[in-house]
Amino acid sequence: MGNRTVYCGRVSKDNLEQPITLQGWVQKRRDLGGVIFIDLRDREGIVQVVFNPKNSQEAWEIADSCRSEYVIEVTGIVKNRGKEAINPNMQTGEFEVMASNITILNKAKTPPFSIEEDTKAGDDIRLKYRYLDLRRTNMTRNLKLRSKTTRAIRHFLDDHEFLDIETPFLGRSTPEGARDYLVPSRVHPGHFYALPQSPQIFKQLLMDAGLDRYYQIVRCFRDEDLRGDRQPEFTQVDIEASFLTPEDIQNYTEQMLAKVMQDTLGIDIERPFPKMTWDEAMNRFGSDKPDTRFGMELIDLSEVVKDVDFKVFQMALQNGGVVKALNAKGAAKNYSRKDMDQLGQYASQFGAKGLAWLKVEEDGLKGPIAKFLTDVSDEIIRQTDAEVGDLIMFGADSFEVVAATLGAIRTRLARELDLIDQSKFNFLWVVDFPQFEYSQEEGRYVSAHHPFTMPKESDIPYLETDPAKVHAEAYDIVLNGYELGGGSLRIHTKELQEQMFKTLGFSPEKMEEQFGFLLEALDYGFPPHGGIALGLDRLVMLLAGEDNIREVIAFPKNGKAMDPMTNAPSTVSPLQLYELNIDVTDTEE
Amino acid sequence: MGNRTVYCGRVSKDNLEQPITLQGWVQKRRDLGGVIFIDLRDREGIVQVVFNPKNSQEAWEIADSCRSEYVIEVTGIVKNRGKEAINPNMQTGEFEVMASNITILNKAKTPPFSIEEDTKAGDDIRLKYRYLDLRRTNMTRNLKLRSKTTRAIRHFLDDHEFLDIETPFLGRSTPEGARDYLVPSRVHPGHFYALPQSPQIFKQLLMDAGLDRYYQIVRCFRDEDLRGDRQPEFTQVDIEASFLTPEDIQNYTEQMLAKVMQDTLGIDIERPFPKMTWDEAMNRFGSDKPDTRFGMELIDLSEVVKDVDFKVFQMALQNGGVVKALNAKGAAKNYSRKDMDQLGQYASQFGAKGLAWLKVEEDGLKGPIAKFLTDVSDEIIRQTDAEVGDLIMFGADSFEVVAATLGAIRTRLARELDLIDQSKFNFLWVVDFPQFEYSQEEGRYVSAHHPFTMPKESDIPYLETDPAKVHAEAYDIVLNGYELGGGSLRIHTKELQEQMFKTLGFSPEKMEEQFGFLLEALDYGFPPHGGIALGLDRLVMLLAGEDNIREVIAFPKNGKAMDPMTNAPSTVSPLQLYELNIDVTDTEE
Repeated sequence: MGNRTVYCGRVSKDNLEQPITLQGWVQKRRDLGGVIFIDLRDREGIVQVVFNPKNSQEAWEIADSCRSEYVIEVTGIVKNRGKEAINPNMQTGEFEVMASNITILNKAKTPPFSIEEDTKAGDDIRLKYRYLDLRRTNMTRNLKLRSKTTRAIRHFLDDHEFLDIETPFLGRSTPEGARDYLVPSRVHPGHFYALPQSPQIFKQLLMDAGLDRYYQIVRCFRDEDLRGDRQPEFTQVDIEASFLTPEDIQNYTEQMLAKVMQDTLGIDIERPFPKMTWDEAMNRFGSDKPDTRFGMELIDLSEVVKDVDFKVFQMALQNGGVVKALNAKGAAKNYSRKDMDQLGQYASQFGAKGLAWLKVEEDGLKGPIAKFLTDVSDEIIRQTDAEVGDLIMFGADSFEVVAATLGAIRTRLARELDLIDQSKFNFLWVVDFPQFEYSQEEGRYVSAHHPFTMPKESDIPYLETDPAKVHAEAYDIVLNGYELGGGSLRIHTKELQEQMFKTLGFSPEKMEEQFGFLLEALDYGFPPHGGIALGLDRLVMLLAGEDNIREVIAFPKNGKAMDPMTNAPSTVSPLQLYELNIDVTDTEE
Repeated sequence: MGNRTVYCGRVSKDNLEQPITLQGWVQKRRDLGGVIFIDLRDREGIVQVVFNPKNSQEAWEIADSCRSEYVIEVTGIVKNRGKEAINPNMQTGEFEVMASNITILNKAKTPPFSIEEDTKAGDDIRLKYRYLDLRRTNMTRNLKLRSKTTRAIRHFLDDHEFLDIETPFLGRSTPEGARDYLVPSRVHPGHFYALPQSPQIFKQLLMDAGLDRYYQIVRCFRDEDLRGDRQPEFTQVDIEASFLTPEDIQNYTEQMLAKVMQDTLGIDIERPFPKMTWDEAMNRFGSDKPDTRFGMELIDLSEVVKDVDFKVFQMALQNGGVVKALNAKGAAKNYSRKDMDQLGQYASQFGAKGLAWLKVEEDGLKGPIAKFLTDVSDEIIRQTDAEVGDLIMFGADSFEVVAATLGAIRTRLARELDLIDQSKFNFLWVVDFPQFEYSQEEGRYVSAHHPFTMPKESDIPYLETDPAKVHAEAYDIVLNGYELGGGSLRIHTKELQEQMFKTLGFSPEKMEEQFGFLLEALDYGFPPHGGIALGLDRLVMLLAGEDNIREVIAFPKNGKAMDPMTNAPSTVSPLQLYELNIDVTDTEE
């Protein structure tokens, strides 16, 4: 339908010598010896259109008046280019269209930045003119990739008995978790809806309703301070099922992701995905989302150095901490003393008091702390597999601080030393997460995932006696060092859910007020169930090889949660506030 | 995966004599002569499970302890029932499962209402225990139907080059249109996001970005007073394309709906759908969304009665109005004088001053106004095709009031007289809508659709001189008397868009402040484009044969925009308000 017979970017040998009609934007116009060449662009790519006055004087004249980003419709015959004119960098580079007709559908002013793959335009100007920014090939490609990704996900889940079910956006505010976006109710003065941080409770209730398998690709909202890969609204692939084991859910997730990789990038991913416990991940990689595309694992040297006369190590060990090392193979030459000072400062962001290090030279270990380690240097060399030219770094502190520090150093060095094979997609399951984290701020245990997560059955007795010991039936899926998503079995009995709230420090009143309806629902035949939620933005970002989710969202907010195009958020009329029974207490400008 | 080998509702002859494992809820438990029969239910249906103590005493004892809504897992062998025991009302009625094993996965208290197709529970109790309400076969069926519907829509659009692209939920408030739901910004005090009433502008900007074909199944929000088929949030199938004609867009829509009908109900719908102009629809049916499953059309008698000495008719005609009639065939006996008084009162809701009527008897027209019409009674009989026993009603007023009145009477009588074939799905296009409606309240023309709608080219000159005359390139899709959706070509040049805002009474400042970004976008090569949006809730409601969209939404709000289950909206903490820089000026309780 429509006049177009083929997309510009799909002109191929099937069209040779055929008349075609194209519709698109003028990417470039050149006049070569009285013949006009227009690179015509649509969402599928670019093709060269030729206007020869001998062919049609009228078309030539119109083409001559065209400028960049004019919208035109062109009819012509597809020809092979001469051998010398073939453009191997262009999908359609073997062909050109000899135009006989052209219509200008709309004109264009000169855009504020050029519509090219590599724009140098700043973030805010790109967002202000997002409709122009999205015309760039890579942005169009990203949005197409995103559409293909959700399509693959949906097709897989549709084919495995999962029902696409919508849950409300206007929900109830629950203070557990991140900060809610609120929506004042006009009908109920002083009352507010909250936008969902996730449809967690609703999807559990759908299981209670017997719907057995649910999915939704759904927007979620968190009013948190923004960072590089955070947006006020983000999209979640939300999955829940009854009567399945964690392994079943992981298995489905793997199949789904394998289909995504196949349908989007044509890559066959090996299955099953590797799996490691949270304890192992923290031990070996200092991270609960390790990037396994490179080695450089953490090596525990606590035993080796337990008797050396180096105060920092001794303090750490005496306080129940650990001493661990990283060996950056061959990196000694890349890091000067000054660089190491900088790395030390970086380490301090993660709580470390410093970063001890050594370089491996022909005649042994060298560096500021080498003198303390003379007795154990052979053993250090053996355990870190050290060779001449290696750079060995040490963390000595509590388990948590050492993990955080060396984990971060490991990732940074891999980037700086270019150790990462960018073509790899390393999926990984991290399982058996701790159920709780202790919040110094709140003086109580808080949920590591959320309060509906099922504890490991053997750990249930510790809920009352020693919450720190409780591990959860929770699993994260990690891709190339990013947490792609996480899930768990959920609690499906009232007794256990009440115990969980108690451990989390809920009073009976608070429990009832906030989650009374859920506790009541647990009384009426709630099936065993569990699920997973994946971050779609991040998944597509990784598939696209981008490093910011803004590049895979059509209309994202900027770093100040603003849209520079529409200027949202904006002030509103006094009538609107009056109707909502609210007043503004402070204004920005 | 999981232990289940087959859904209860899908046990079939393929499973005969095979061991199967089921997981589900106890619908009913009976003890017949020491043998226990459990009707076991999952989302696909019900199957009968038999526990004979001779088979397994242990299983029998557990089964004996089961109560309604217990969640159990059962293993057994599928058998044919004896001929006399076959239940023809049950999908699996020919079979039963001889159980050898049973595990209770969770217990249940007695539910507050029974889990049966026909519940007598009130709306609010159903919503409070929605997870139980959704267990009822018809609700489960509705949600499955909804999932099937979106699946069919997506598959069709995916296969026709439409890209699924997400647009923001946190947008900018635009006072044109219905009332917005607002979301206070924490980062920008005194500023607010608005939840989208539709992604209208964003989808147009996606066309500007060259993405060519877009769709999204997306939640939209309107803070309006609620009626039977309205919800604060509703779901829209949103479609936009560049370079297409209205006929192209209608054609795609028809194909898509035909696929939906086929994939959900197995019904082959005839195409192309009939089409009529807005003028014709109003003339013949008194409605811009006529139910064409029955006749009883409006008949214009203005010419016939122009000289009769009946003041009501004369007044109407002298004021430029019309006199029209409805003939309810054979309905004279169904409506007493008292009934007609009631109908007259009903008519007055639509602005009519009364409802004149006649009954056709052996000896001519009878009724309160018959005496005025003696001279033209033959012509009335001829034009209304009247026969003995018919009931003829008259509307005499402005065109609009007569249309509204007789249109409503027509629909009401069809229902009361059972004239509607409920098995029919009558799709209809209504095209060439007026561009504007005059708002008495605002003292200006307002958009009938929205201010981005393209006027008919020939009507563009009237934008300045006589807006009432302007018709739009707008079309609605109607199903069985419901507006299923609507669309239009959009304006794609700055001049015309500015003229449109001017006609709508926008000052240059207001234009710039609210839509400056769109006007600017029109400068950079905006392609010709158009689209359509369909109401998913209403579509599924009609497919399901329900008469309220609440029945096809998993977790709807009640008539007060509340969720009786979670008690949303709720009060929030002072800290939350403080962080958002707002105060509540009035509270409900």
